[in-house]
Amino acid sequence: MKYLIVYAHPEPKSLTGHLKDRAVGALTAAGHDVVVSDLYAMGWKAVADGDDFPVRDRGAPLNYGYASKEAYAAGNQSTDIAEEQRKLLWADVVVLQFPFWWYGMPAIMKGWFDRVYAYGFAYGVGPHGGAQWGKRFGEGILLGKRAMVAMTVGGRMSHYGPRGVNGNIDDLLWPIHHGLLFYPGLTVVPPAVFYEVNKATPDAVESMAQAYIRRLLDIEAAESIAFRSQNGGDYDELQVLKPEHGDDRIGHALHQSGTPFVSNTFLGVLGDYTPRHISPTSRDAA
Amino acid sequence: MKYLIVYAHPEPKSLTGHLKDRAVGALTAAGHDVVVSDLYAMGWKAVADGDDFPVRDRGAPLNYGYASKEAYAAGNQSTDIAEEQRKLLWADVVVLQFPFWWYGMPAIMKGWFDRVYAYGFAYGVGPHGGAQWGKRFGEGILLGKRAMVAMTVGGRMSHYGPRGVNGNIDDLLWPIHHGLLFYPGLTVVPPAVFYEVNKATPDAVESMAQAYIRRLLDIEAAESIAFRSQNGGDYDELQVLKPEHGDDRIGHALHQSGTPFVSNTFLGVLGDYTPRHISPTSRDAA
Repeated sequence: MKYLIVYAHPEPKSLTGHLKDRAVGALTAAGHDVVVSDLYAMGWKAVADGDDFPVRDRGAPLNYGYASKEAYAAGNQSTDIAEEQRKLLWADVVVLQFPFWWYGMPAIMKGWFDRVYAYGFAYGVGPHGGAQWGKRFGEGILLGKRAMVAMTVGGRMSHYGPRGVNGNIDDLLWPIHHGLLFYPGLTVVPPAVFYEVNKATPDAVESMAQAYIRRLLDIEAAESIAFRSQNGGDYDELQVLKPEHGDDRIGHALHQSGTPFVSNTFLGVLGDYTPRHISPTSRDAA
Repeated sequence: MKYLIVYAHPEPKSLTGHLKDRAVGALTAAGHDVVVSDLYAMGWKAVADGDDFPVRDRGAPLNYGYASKEAYAAGNQSTDIAEEQRKLLWADVVVLQFPFWWYGMPAIMKGWFDRVYAYGFAYGVGPHGGAQWGKRFGEGILLGKRAMVAMTVGGRMSHYGPRGVNGNIDDLLWPIHHGLLFYPGLTVVPPAVFYEVNKATPDAVESMAQAYIRRLLDIEAAESIAFRSQNGGDYDELQVLKPEHGDDRIGHALHQSGTPFVSNTFLGVLGDYTPRHISPTSRDAA
């Protein structure tokens, strides 16, 4: 299979960098093709602005969405944007690997989506109006491919549980899972989330690497998150979920058929959540 | 009062830019002090990396959090970061104004938080361990100040309602409201969310501007979102909400006392959600 790992960390010697290296090694050894978009190493331009459209009239007011539509349709996007789109079309599996900073992805990765997800490529595709609202959420250009979030978290799992103070990790990942990955058609599998990474012992790091590799190698057979298809009949003409669905639920669980997904049941590589001391060696690698 | 508007849009002639200009004009006319951090105009550095620490040893592996802790404590942060921290300390009210791109803030604004929220300034403050997990979520350096999100959205309100296909707007804003604003002590008031901005008529734009100004002028008296205080007794030693609270709730509503907040009841400036055509004039301003 063909794996694209979109990776963002400023330090190659970090735990995130180590897990990425281990993943690339194991996938390659198993005969898979792997491409890494190492956003920091590439000097990825994070900020969406008028410079993204080489042939656009600079004197006209910029509507970024419409400018991206015109550039995508005309084939004159920035070369860095077009190249990332080609990688997405090439891949069977898309992995987002990043440290969880302030309850989201680092700015450089958000800027990857802001710029690569052009109008006409990732959104604004297909008929709009009536009961049809374009090819998204179950349709789209990346349909048939799989996606997974892999991220390192400084805090404890208990803080991210169903009643944890930070909010449930599944609530925090909803904008990414549904809004960024499911939106253009990707099938999303449960995330690989590694907690308390600043306190990880060498044994814990090894457990994380093995768990991550296992998840990547098994991704084709993994049970995916059963998000509802927008145009599959579950939503009405205003794209509101019909009353017969999910009356027993609130929040994003509404938008899943079957038993709602709870990602923390897939994790637990550190085993327990008692306080740990920060060791000088693991601190440098965090 | 002193208002800091952190503003991110690549086009000054955009609707977002227009609403910002109207807000600045009305607040100033009412006798308030206003400072705008216009991130695009400032050429704000979005990407958190080793260049943020002028006196750090470049040969050592970078742990961004620890490097920010040392630079903050030693008073040798990047000048752009220190200046934004000063603005936050100066302000009584912090407003985040941005277009909702891919279910979150533009990368340049995420990078403002990634860089300005230094260890020792916004997090890692106060005692950790036992039942105390630092000054956050109800305590912190920005305690006593108020914050509001003001954002423009391309989609329809129905798509962002409690059962809308994009997810409830309150679910999507949870990482920002709780994780970015409430975290260092800010009191969060309901957001000003403007939908279908690409289709807005001049009358709708005027309604939006007046609603936004009203919200800003009334912010001191506005009912805030009643997020629970981390160290106020509602959470146990693992920072899990105690069983006696919120048994009738799931998701982020758990983390509010009283009746959970529903932001869409505060909106509705466009009045209805039937399809509208895109006019050439409004299209340029979107």
